[in-house]
Amino acid sequence: MSSEETFDVIVVGAGCLGVATAYYMQKNSPDKKILLVERTLAAGQANTAMSAAAVRNMFASSTNQLLTDTSIKYFEHVQKEIGYDLFFEKTGYLWLLGEDQFNHESVKVWMERMKKSGISYKVYNKDELKEMIPGLNVDFAGDEEAELMNLHEVSYGLFGADCGVLDPTRLVEYYFEEFTKISHVKPRFGVDVEKLLLEADPKLDLPGEPFVWQKKKVNGVVTDKGTYRADVVVLATGTWTNELLDPIGMDSLTKCKKRQLFVIHAEEKEELQSLLDAEGFNELGSIPFTILPSAGVYFRPQLQERGFWIGCGDKVGREYKYIQTDEDMIPESAYYEKSMYPVLSKYFPAFVGARPVNSWAGGYNYSPDRIPFVYLECGVLVVNGASGSGIMKADAMGRIADALYRGEPEAELFGGKKIPSTTLSIKDRDVEVESVII
Amino acid sequence: MSSEETFDVIVVGAGCLGVATAYYMQKNSPDKKILLVERTLAAGQANTAMSAAAVRNMFASSTNQLLTDTSIKYFEHVQKEIGYDLFFEKTGYLWLLGEDQFNHESVKVWMERMKKSGISYKVYNKDELKEMIPGLNVDFAGDEEAELMNLHEVSYGLFGADCGVLDPTRLVEYYFEEFTKISHVKPRFGVDVEKLLLEADPKLDLPGEPFVWQKKKVNGVVTDKGTYRADVVVLATGTWTNELLDPIGMDSLTKCKKRQLFVIHAEEKEELQSLLDAEGFNELGSIPFTILPSAGVYFRPQLQERGFWIGCGDKVGREYKYIQTDEDMIPESAYYEKSMYPVLSKYFPAFVGARPVNSWAGGYNYSPDRIPFVYLECGVLVVNGASGSGIMKADAMGRIADALYRGEPEAELFGGKKIPSTTLSIKDRDVEVESVII
Repeated sequence: MSSEETFDVIVVGAGCLGVATAYYMQKNSPDKKILLVERTLAAGQANTAMSAAAVRNMFASSTNQLLTDTSIKYFEHVQKEIGYDLFFEKTGYLWLLGEDQFNHESVKVWMERMKKSGISYKVYNKDELKEMIPGLNVDFAGDEEAELMNLHEVSYGLFGADCGVLDPTRLVEYYFEEFTKISHVKPRFGVDVEKLLLEADPKLDLPGEPFVWQKKKVNGVVTDKGTYRADVVVLATGTWTNELLDPIGMDSLTKCKKRQLFVIHAEEKEELQSLLDAEGFNELGSIPFTILPSAGVYFRPQLQERGFWIGCGDKVGREYKYIQTDEDMIPESAYYEKSMYPVLSKYFPAFVGARPVNSWAGGYNYSPDRIPFVYLECGVLVVNGASGSGIMKADAMGRIADALYRGEPEAELFGGKKIPSTTLSIKDRDVEVESVII
Repeated sequence: MSSEETFDVIVVGAGCLGVATAYYMQKNSPDKKILLVERTLAAGQANTAMSAAAVRNMFASSTNQLLTDTSIKYFEHVQKEIGYDLFFEKTGYLWLLGEDQFNHESVKVWMERMKKSGISYKVYNKDELKEMIPGLNVDFAGDEEAELMNLHEVSYGLFGADCGVLDPTRLVEYYFEEFTKISHVKPRFGVDVEKLLLEADPKLDLPGEPFVWQKKKVNGVVTDKGTYRADVVVLATGTWTNELLDPIGMDSLTKCKKRQLFVIHAEEKEELQSLLDAEGFNELGSIPFTILPSAGVYFRPQLQERGFWIGCGDKVGREYKYIQTDEDMIPESAYYEKSMYPVLSKYFPAFVGARPVNSWAGGYNYSPDRIPFVYLECGVLVVNGASGSGIMKADAMGRIADALYRGEPEAELFGGKKIPSTTLSIKDRDVEVESVII
């Protein structure tokens, strides 16, 4: 026995992209019945909660710059003007780079494009970095181990002051609360969307529909709690988007990798305390979010907990796999010990001997050009493929999705900048490939 | 107990792309030990054998034009000058188009680019088509059924004389025989490649390798018959490429759909005989390979068997699914009856009542821009994503793969035209998106 209910819009997924999209759609179409459904039991508790939750406007693609810069400014606005604390802290982002890396053509293009877009950044040289970062190892001359490990020396630091970290749960709660204030339908949790309802348009009620000669449209979703119908289904489903789009023959063009974070406490180690409290980068007197020159290893300062989150943007060797099972969410301790720790402790000997006190894993959904997808096709509004930077693009992507839904040719982002609504589509994509992937 | 053997190159997959690549690599690197492995028991018997095996140079992208035009010319050369019969018949390709379709911007661009590339084509008007094609229905005025079925009228025919059909098995046999004449290693059939052998480079022989700080390279394949090592592994694996690349974290950017063909015999029906023998298009006095204006339905004349192969390039509604199981290879009779037949019999009443005497199904592997991929990364040379037109691009793709292997900046295609070896890569891709998909 399956029940049927009808709405104007169904937003599938209450992660950061789903709640931002639901909010802007409801805000700008106040009469529409918008249902937000989520598989887990609360908003933002799946992959959004598993991310490093750092935000940066330092991208090489001007599209990514625009999406992130306006989103981050909106987060600041929420925190400062609206007074909703997102625990947004402007720690800054610091890329440590070797000589060859810094002089690479792609870094030149990156800096030029930031200059052009008005993204502020600063370059530190080796001596400045050594002075500012207690214990930083910039040189591995004579260190055979470091040579075997392909470790680049540290010659420069590329620093962006308008970047930082925030609490992803707070961000999701903000949008979610604003959405529920104005929505006509109570969001539903614990609802498993099993498939998209692809139907002939118009329906002829022939057995076996839809046939190839019929137009087709997604008219809702089939869930474990019944069938929900709507004119538009928003897929803000991250790593399980393919499971919904593949069966109807739409290629999301995205693929997922597992990402893991390991928490190191600074409390009982003086060197780690000093590193955390590195002066001169920001008003907080803290080390920035820092990307090491080698192997994709990075760390995020965690000021409340007095510690670090250690992560790694590993590339070839980390399988593409859809993240959905509990098993996929288990972090691998050997990954920290054998892969990240050796790199981390070479550059920052303060970490020598440091053991994680906590860890978690989630999934990132990558697009081929590392620019997100937002498009409306066949009744499906896909908001996806943020490639590990969905939180910092959430506000802009939500506004673009809403503009597309309303048939507006342009979306107005926070601060008034405009972007064509089809910029992030598949068919009329107009973006520069992103080269600054962590 | 697993054995290990070492080669210079392993080519995985003996479909049309695999055998062409193996042949050109061996031809131009005569001293190399090149092993061709195939999961089935003969060359060209998987998805290559399941295709419509039609060849056309009528693409909108100049890249596809170049790949197909030179390949087709080589096939002609093989058949005429070398004297190896591929059963290549220049039936031509005929697109039937409604007024709006013909005047669509994309068709204008298509024709302009063909003109520029020297691809010959001809436009027939409605009256000419009616005269040349016995029984063709060009107009559905007053036909409510046709209206419900969204059928376009026929206003124009876009015809390419240098297109045709061939026998895919003969083509594969040609390359395979030429390869085995010069290869040093006997090809192996019934070998299931289970995974790529991704190793640290250099190997440090530490337990748990490769770690994130190590360079990585594919050094061979693990099969059910043992481990084979090689400097380069060629993946000409079509629809199961993702199964091999996903686990090492490389995104093939391709996705597969099922394609089905249904055979109709003309023998016992006079109207079908007349249709098959339509005069004026080619020297064979046969109807061309014909694409209907609606629903993606097409047919291929089969002159030896005196019949037609009916196919359909269905889009949304046909699931993306990796084709690998026997079950996936089963054609669906309802698909012919309810989806293709109604369209076919409206335009060509000669088919009314016609029942398939045979049918089969296979998989097509689509790239996002419908242009193939050929690139060498991490020791893997991927030759993939021909998007349903691998046979007609096989010669050019084999030559490009060989040029990449030899480190040549350009590949020389048949007839002397050159193409940069990285044109079809992911990183330095330089192609126009293909719009003429069947």
